[in-house]
Amino acid sequence: LAESPQEFELINQIRRMAAPFARISAGIGDDAAVIEFPVPARALLTVDMLMEGVDFTLQTATPFQIGRKALAVNLSDIAAMAGRPLACVSSVALPRAGGFALGLELAQGLQSLANEMHVGVAGGDTNSWNGPVVISVTVLGEATPRGPVPRSGARPADWIMVTGQMGGSLAGKHLNFTPRVQEALALHEAAALHAMIDISDGLAADLHHILKESGAGAVIEEAALPISAAAFAARDGRTPLEHALEDGEDFELLFTVSAEEGRKLLEHPPVAVGLSRIGEITVEPGCRLKRRDGREEPLPPRGWRHAFE
Amino acid sequence: LAESPQEFELINQIRRMAAPFARISAGIGDDAAVIEFPVPARALLTVDMLMEGVDFTLQTATPFQIGRKALAVNLSDIAAMAGRPLACVSSVALPRAGGFALGLELAQGLQSLANEMHVGVAGGDTNSWNGPVVISVTVLGEATPRGPVPRSGARPADWIMVTGQMGGSLAGKHLNFTPRVQEALALHEAAALHAMIDISDGLAADLHHILKESGAGAVIEEAALPISAAAFAARDGRTPLEHALEDGEDFELLFTVSAEEGRKLLEHPPVAVGLSRIGEITVEPGCRLKRRDGREEPLPPRGWRHAFE
Repeated sequence: LAESPQEFELINQIRRMAAPFARISAGIGDDAAVIEFPVPARALLTVDMLMEGVDFTLQTATPFQIGRKALAVNLSDIAAMAGRPLACVSSVALPRAGGFALGLELAQGLQSLANEMHVGVAGGDTNSWNGPVVISVTVLGEATPRGPVPRSGARPADWIMVTGQMGGSLAGKHLNFTPRVQEALALHEAAALHAMIDISDGLAADLHHILKESGAGAVIEEAALPISAAAFAARDGRTPLEHALEDGEDFELLFTVSAEEGRKLLEHPPVAVGLSRIGEITVEPGCRLKRRDGREEPLPPRGWRHAFE
Repeated sequence: LAESPQEFELINQIRRMAAPFARISAGIGDDAAVIEFPVPARALLTVDMLMEGVDFTLQTATPFQIGRKALAVNLSDIAAMAGRPLACVSSVALPRAGGFALGLELAQGLQSLANEMHVGVAGGDTNSWNGPVVISVTVLGEATPRGPVPRSGARPADWIMVTGQMGGSLAGKHLNFTPRVQEALALHEAAALHAMIDISDGLAADLHHILKESGAGAVIEEAALPISAAAFAARDGRTPLEHALEDGEDFELLFTVSAEEGRKLLEHPPVAVGLSRIGEITVEPGCRLKRRDGREEPLPPRGWRHAFE
């Protein structure tokens, strides 16, 4: 919809910032971006919205970090499908007071990660109002010839594996994480991944998403969990284990593979960020945590945040 | 990011509402939607955000109308490229108080138009906060074999043409318009369209977008303008002509074709919503309005709305 002269100038500056991409034949400055699919393809589409006061505050994050993160969370979703990201579009609601500088810095943060990950900034919608900052980013990607990896493909006796470490993301990682796009592509190239999700809600909650969509259960082994240094450093009354299981925004990959493929991955890890087998898919429904002493206890899908009244 | 149990239930209800589409092989309930491009394609991607208090109020529009419009404005952008819409994703910020019912009605409005226009609802991001309603919709489409129609293709001596009538949209049309998707496809099939845009900012402002991107000028003829009944009925101190030139949200198509193709279109109109030749592209830059008495005056790009401070 209509823009003010100041919004036009902001869009012009963002347009000049955008690097040209071979696959984007028309971008900012037309009614829609044009992205080339030169061979038959399975396109991937995902959207995430970040809201001031809910997902970030301007006291604890810079606009640059927020713009970067708004793209990063979506790239993490494309990674969770083992896809290649191609292009993004964003829509923003900016406060009228100071909105120009803020919008420019958001765009710079987004553009910096787009450049790093070879994603084209293809368009957007810039708005101002007397309200909090809202940024919504949509990423268009494509599956590799091996196909997208759904949440629903976990099979009994599959190994459950993760990249990196879990817990304590709020101490800093949630604002500067690198979405596991390259890692997901490398893993999918090296092994037939059955099911995958990125850990955004928290390990336990996201595992439940896989189990629900796959109609399966799981046992997770406490002793096998790669718990991050940030989870140990938290000292806020919650244990490092609780942080690793329940903290959101790790943005690591959680996936299942056959035991045979899992063994291959551990022998020759195709990723440099760490790779762990943390448990197994079971026929019995539900999710259990096997403690170090061998006892099993239920593992509930903790990890949500906000609610309607 | 993480959803509350109530948000999950809302997403479940929206998921059950979504009709299956042959081209969408995975939609709501995974990290990203999967949309099939079975042959090489030029994908189209566009996004628009509607904000409470700026683009609508809950006193003057129902949530159903807002959800429908949030998709409609994007379909109008795909139409402006003469493309076929395929799938959409949406992100919403809902107030905590009453957000469930509101979100459901927004989704119903969006879904109703999606069904009508054969567009798949492929995913989304549902959030709640203590703020106004925000809805951002992204549409993925594809160009036809004739290619997308850019804003930048207008050539000197081209006819400037429009579908339908202009002005007075705020009296009602802006909430229930039908995006000109079928009309754009029919026009592009019948003639080689050079440049096209949908009239969202207002006829004068949107014509300026075409002229800027095409590096050309134009003369518009007052006597040829199809002015809507709503523009005549407004009686708010502005003339029907001013309404037709400056009101936003007509969501009609504004396009240019060679005079020869334009004549063919008027002889055998491929659309039922009305088709008018309103002027001509000129080598001289700038935009002029030719009044009924033959005088020419500048036609400025009026039509914007909101601004930063």
